[in-house]
Amino acid sequence: MLNDMKPIHVNVAVIGAGTAGMGAYRAARAHTDSVLLIEGDVYGTTCARVGCMPSKLLIAAAEAAHQARHTEAFGVQVKDITIDGAAVMARVQRERNRFVGFVLETVEAIPPCDRLKAKVSFQDANTLVTEHGQLIHAQRVVIATGSIPMLPPVLKGLSAHLLTNESVFDLPTLPTSLAVFGPGILGMELAQAMSRLGVKVKVFGVGGGIAGIRDPAIRDYANKVLNEEFYLDASAQVKSVKEWAGGVEVHYLHRDGAWQTEPFEYVLAAAGRTPNLAGLVLENTGLQLNERGVPVFDRFTQQCGSSAIFIAGDASNDIPLLHEAADQGRIAGENAGRYPDIQPGLRRTPLAVVFTDPQIASVGFNLKQLNQQFKDRFAEGLVSFEDQGRSRVMLRNKGILKVYGEHGSGLFLGAEMFGPAAEHTGHLLAWAAQQRMTVSGMLEMPFYHPVIEEGLRTALRDLNHKLRIGPPVIERCMDCGPGA
Amino acid sequence: MLNDMKPIHVNVAVIGAGTAGMGAYRAARAHTDSVLLIEGDVYGTTCARVGCMPSKLLIAAAEAAHQARHTEAFGVQVKDITIDGAAVMARVQRERNRFVGFVLETVEAIPPCDRLKAKVSFQDANTLVTEHGQLIHAQRVVIATGSIPMLPPVLKGLSAHLLTNESVFDLPTLPTSLAVFGPGILGMELAQAMSRLGVKVKVFGVGGGIAGIRDPAIRDYANKVLNEEFYLDASAQVKSVKEWAGGVEVHYLHRDGAWQTEPFEYVLAAAGRTPNLAGLVLENTGLQLNERGVPVFDRFTQQCGSSAIFIAGDASNDIPLLHEAADQGRIAGENAGRYPDIQPGLRRTPLAVVFTDPQIASVGFNLKQLNQQFKDRFAEGLVSFEDQGRSRVMLRNKGILKVYGEHGSGLFLGAEMFGPAAEHTGHLLAWAAQQRMTVSGMLEMPFYHPVIEEGLRTALRDLNHKLRIGPPVIERCMDCGPGA
Repeated sequence: MLNDMKPIHVNVAVIGAGTAGMGAYRAARAHTDSVLLIEGDVYGTTCARVGCMPSKLLIAAAEAAHQARHTEAFGVQVKDITIDGAAVMARVQRERNRFVGFVLETVEAIPPCDRLKAKVSFQDANTLVTEHGQLIHAQRVVIATGSIPMLPPVLKGLSAHLLTNESVFDLPTLPTSLAVFGPGILGMELAQAMSRLGVKVKVFGVGGGIAGIRDPAIRDYANKVLNEEFYLDASAQVKSVKEWAGGVEVHYLHRDGAWQTEPFEYVLAAAGRTPNLAGLVLENTGLQLNERGVPVFDRFTQQCGSSAIFIAGDASNDIPLLHEAADQGRIAGENAGRYPDIQPGLRRTPLAVVFTDPQIASVGFNLKQLNQQFKDRFAEGLVSFEDQGRSRVMLRNKGILKVYGEHGSGLFLGAEMFGPAAEHTGHLLAWAAQQRMTVSGMLEMPFYHPVIEEGLRTALRDLNHKLRIGPPVIERCMDCGPGA
Repeated sequence: MLNDMKPIHVNVAVIGAGTAGMGAYRAARAHTDSVLLIEGDVYGTTCARVGCMPSKLLIAAAEAAHQARHTEAFGVQVKDITIDGAAVMARVQRERNRFVGFVLETVEAIPPCDRLKAKVSFQDANTLVTEHGQLIHAQRVVIATGSIPMLPPVLKGLSAHLLTNESVFDLPTLPTSLAVFGPGILGMELAQAMSRLGVKVKVFGVGGGIAGIRDPAIRDYANKVLNEEFYLDASAQVKSVKEWAGGVEVHYLHRDGAWQTEPFEYVLAAAGRTPNLAGLVLENTGLQLNERGVPVFDRFTQQCGSSAIFIAGDASNDIPLLHEAADQGRIAGENAGRYPDIQPGLRRTPLAVVFTDPQIASVGFNLKQLNQQFKDRFAEGLVSFEDQGRSRVMLRNKGILKVYGEHGSGLFLGAEMFGPAAEHTGHLLAWAAQQRMTVSGMLEMPFYHPVIEEGLRTALRDLNHKLRIGPPVIERCMDCGPGA
């Protein structure tokens, strides 16, 4: 590692060695040998350490417990289900550490002379300074500093019993009870998983949002279904959260109308994450910053204004998803590497998945965007999975799917789903959207039988009828097989 | 119903009221009011009565038992798992009857004057005669008589303890033991489901085939994995199967090399199905028949030669899958309805799924076809799911996927998979193939993280490298996220 105090001169400095930063480093390195990857914290990506991977591991355990509890209807009797909280967390941590290990291997494979472990800030647009005063002169800079959890005001001041996604996966065992603040993506995934693992869970939200769902009908449906498992109030009134030796006490207005005080072992702050830019002193760059303090940038080149500074990943506050961070990182790195030859990179059709059960998927234009950009010229098709054949066979027959299409062109525009196997249907739909398929064209594709995708077909037929392109949906149409 | 003995004159007669026949009836009815739907057996499709639906119901129960048995690794302890065989079969039958009920409702919705319940045979190409001697003069005929189970020679003569797919789902409870003859699609689905439901299962096959898998590497892998659950010899030597009061005795050469005699409560004949054409006396039509007695027909129009006879569904011996039967039925019905204006119909990219665990999916050109039609100009990409991130998170990390592409064009040609969620990946790939996507184009589509589809991406990258279009696959490439 570079750690003498002589100034460093590089073509490209990448600040942050997470998903976006490592991608940017690799892409820039294809254009120049002079790239420095700077990390101010521990190595290992948000995804591997405190995001996608540990949450999916916890969800896998929850799914196992949930499935074991619901075998009776199939003629399979299971008694005596015990959740070993320490064993659950041990697997989460062991496997998480393995994934983090892969990241660390990748970091280790980067030549030490290309790496610097230091917190840095901008002295000017081409000069960084480390916490120890070392100067880095960089012709181009990629900002890829990621994000940090936001703390809702009501949780300020809590300490030992306050968890975030950065600490929850390190618990030695499952808590007995958990108050989750923020029914966003992470909040809902963790709340449901904890609940299924026997933790008493209550979820408190502000503003009514649930896991990023845009369509009110789907959000209401999800709210109803999730409330069958645990208390979820997406528009909660919480007066105070007080900490004591054994946990916290939440003073809130119960949805039944009465104020009450309820103890929990822990509170989980899951009110989202915010770009981690505070320490960079971006004011010194001369860049134009938006109202959240994020440099204004072009999302196809990742360039900040017309500067030689690029931004990528969660730091950009664009779409905080791993595959988007990877794309942004690569684009930023390529443009930083071949600067001043700036080229737009591939941005894919939006696809977001929430790994609750049922799962949530959002594809392409969401309802808010449609109402802005396609006002009066889009239609929606709908299917319920409650009577969908294969879903019912597996007793996973909960959920709805909406698909959106454009009048006139018949183009498929987007979809939102709360239903079984939404992660897979989400891919099918995102690929269709990115290829600019029409709804009619999608209906010409194969649908096997009996599969959950047949529910999608019903929704597409409904959409094509609403677009005045196809005939009405025939209920229990036998050309789709029984129970399609 | 028509049941007087005066001759009937119709524009279109459809023989068989299964999936293909009902589709043909409906399509023909759009062109002419004079259509007669003839059924010689019970109403209700093969799919609903004895095929897709009851098998998926049994598999759902088996999956529930299997999942409950494998929670320990997640930190969830389950003791005392009991399979209530009567309850398992009761749900299978209750839900199956519900699906059959939908079919019967559809039949009931057809005007009685358009229906005839009778076995018929051809007197000449335009004349049918019922078992009671009633004549039906039909300007056009659609043959949609479906298929019947084939009985392997070694099982000839068995009676009370011989099951086929037509009887197995009516058992009042699960058998204690089952010898399955035929490791085809139905055989493997039922063998694994029965085994997971506590039935002692052994599977005997001829010729080495397993569930229609074409790629030897995938077949070998499946053979190994499935043998970890139950005895499967796809190239078995069975000398005799003798029936006695309590079951059967199978005398066979065990794979360990010793001949042995083993008792089973039942034997299941699962050696495939054959077109149900014997009673039609097709010789009287003057049609050219192939070596299996099936009329030679055009698979895009379903027309038999240049006649006014069309054939659809399992009777055609083309692709015995519900969605293919539905397409064939619709095409046959449309062409019979508007005869002599014959038009080709939409045939979709081949997609077959086997609902074992791991599942099997085949898409587009299979390896046999590739070796014939794309010899020396295709390459294959491979991924193993054993180390695939999300699959491992869920402990579903078994399986391999091969994808095939064309040198020069870079077109995606087909795929075969034995692995997790293959039914969903199968759809994604079949849609890609039908749209003639290139492998590079597929790699531009979104892949979420962490998902099983990331395994597909690895295989596609490998394929593109083998096609000399893309770079080598980077192991644990971090631009895909940890454990992609």
